Amino acid sequence: MSVDERREQLIAVALELFSRRPPEEVSIDDIAAAAGASRPLVYHYFPGKQALYEASLRRAGRELSARFEEPMEGPLSERLYRVMGRYLDFVQSHGPGFAALLRGGSVAASPGTSAVIDEVRRAAHDQILSHLAIPRPSPGLRLAVRAWIANAEITSLEWLAERSVPLEELQLHLVQEFVASLTLTAAREPALATELATFFAGERPDGPTGRLVRDLAGLFAVPGILDAVTVLAAGTADAGAPVSGAADAGAPGSAAPTPAPVDEPSAEATQGSTGTGGE
Amino acid sequence: MSVDERREQLIAVALELFSRRPPEEVSIDDIAAAAGASRPLVYHYFPGKQALYEASLRRAGRELSARFEEPMEGPLSERLYRVMGRYLDFVQSHGPGFAALLRGGSVAASPGTSAVIDEVRRAAHDQILSHLAIPRPSPGLRLAVRAWIANAEITSLEWLAERSVPLEELQLHLVQEFVASLTLTAAREPALATELATFFAGERPDGPTGRLVRDLAGLFAVPGILDAVTVLAAGTADAGAPVSGAADAGAPGSAAPTPAPVDEPSAEATQGSTGTGGE
Repeated sequence: MSVDERREQLIAVALELFSRRPPEEVSIDDIAAAAGASRPLVYHYFPGKQALYEASLRRAGRELSARFEEPMEGPLSERLYRVMGRYLDFVQSHGPGFAALLRGGSVAASPGTSAVIDEVRRAAHDQILSHLAIPRPSPGLRLAVRAWIANAEITSLEWLAERSVPLEELQLHLVQEFVASLTLTAAREPALATELATFFAGERPDGPTGRLVRDLAGLFAVPGILDAVTVLAAGTADAGAPVSGAADAGAPGSAAPTPAPVDEPSAEATQGSTGTGGE
Repeated sequence: MSVDERREQLIAVALELFSRRPPEEVSIDDIAAAAGASRPLVYHYFPGKQALYEASLRRAGRELSARFEEPMEGPLSERLYRVMGRYLDFVQSHGPGFAALLRGGSVAASPGTSAVIDEVRRAAHDQILSHLAIPRPSPGLRLAVRAWIANAEITSLEWLAERSVPLEELQLHLVQEFVASLTLTAAREPALATELATFFAGERPDGPTGRLVRDLAGLFAVPGILDAVTVLAAGTADAGAPVSGAADAGAPGSAAPTPAPVDEPSAEATQGSTGTGGE
């Protein structure tokens, strides 16, 4: 083995071990044994365990970032769905050992490890924005993307700890949460509305977005929800254009300007007057 | 000053300093000077800077958790709005020094600091669930709450770094994101739908939820969005119950079961017909 090959081999072996166990449970001796090398040889390449840990984390970060790459073809939610499949597969195989690091409770955490994690987050962020193909993303959109990435991290760490749902569900839910976040951001930023229209127009009924739309539409069949939302959409006297938007959406009851009585404890009495007043 | 008072005073002074500057820029001498105490006196109470740092972080954690408490009265989104006001106020006054710790890149991070952070997150989580008053919250709901807390953290750290939007906007947006997350969770978990109905029925048109509903309704006035969403809601031939839910909501186009061909970039032309078409 050349010097470079040996170095890479040690990193690969260390990554394998650090992926399964927290760093405090992996020794230089373990790594040497797994690599078929002597302890002094390992020390010849790396000053200590922390250096080897950081090198293997960097390797893991590069592997993970590579999984974010996806051809710019097809409905956006389906691209993201495929990426999340590869991401969750990575989490499953490398996550157990790095979970403490991501949670912030690892003894091996250092400015070096933080830099690697930040770089992976940035790669995810940049990939998403390039697929969205929005020329100049607003601070609000960037923030929504970052928050969604944090959501994906938390959710997958949580899953590693409890594995309470099938991984495929997580994959679908995370994509749908991204769609929801994009929609919410566009609701706040009129400049994004055209992009949102293009996004929805590119989606397919049997994809993650189509399924989300039908799940949400299903909620309106639940007694009380449509009524309550209609009252809220009607708004107060000074609510402007959006109200007519709600009427455009064909919500029943838009013919009757008086909001349907909401069936609830005490708040209703007050709300009845809020809705009717002023219109 | 009694022994206890002196100890508390040192913690208060340290918290003040650690809130403004990262730990590596605060020395025991700084703390002693600010407390009007000698260096040996500080060491008499605390073995070193890390111990004092952790004690002040614990104090900060307790103060922050106390801000989560809110009377169980009024619309839920307005309770959360008030809590977020107090939270963001705390972030503004204590956040700068602790930002690196929360981001995971602090030299002062330790199992002790992680425990404090986890405890604050748990307090937030428990407060939210107790206000939701859902007897046995599902794993999905708990996860949604945790993910939203992560969102609030990321968003406020981001805000500290860039201050690109007014704090009041952040306060409103975070609450609205919680409402969206609750809605999404209920869309997936039929058992939550009744609770969601109760939630919406308790909301007011001029509160965060009412404003969100109108912003989202406004999106449907954007050319193309309603058409595209209607196609998705109509679904594929084998899509079950949710589709009828969509029909109940009065979505036009549910008569045509064949998914419309997806029209990409040039979407606008097709979209012009949106407002009028279908009804």
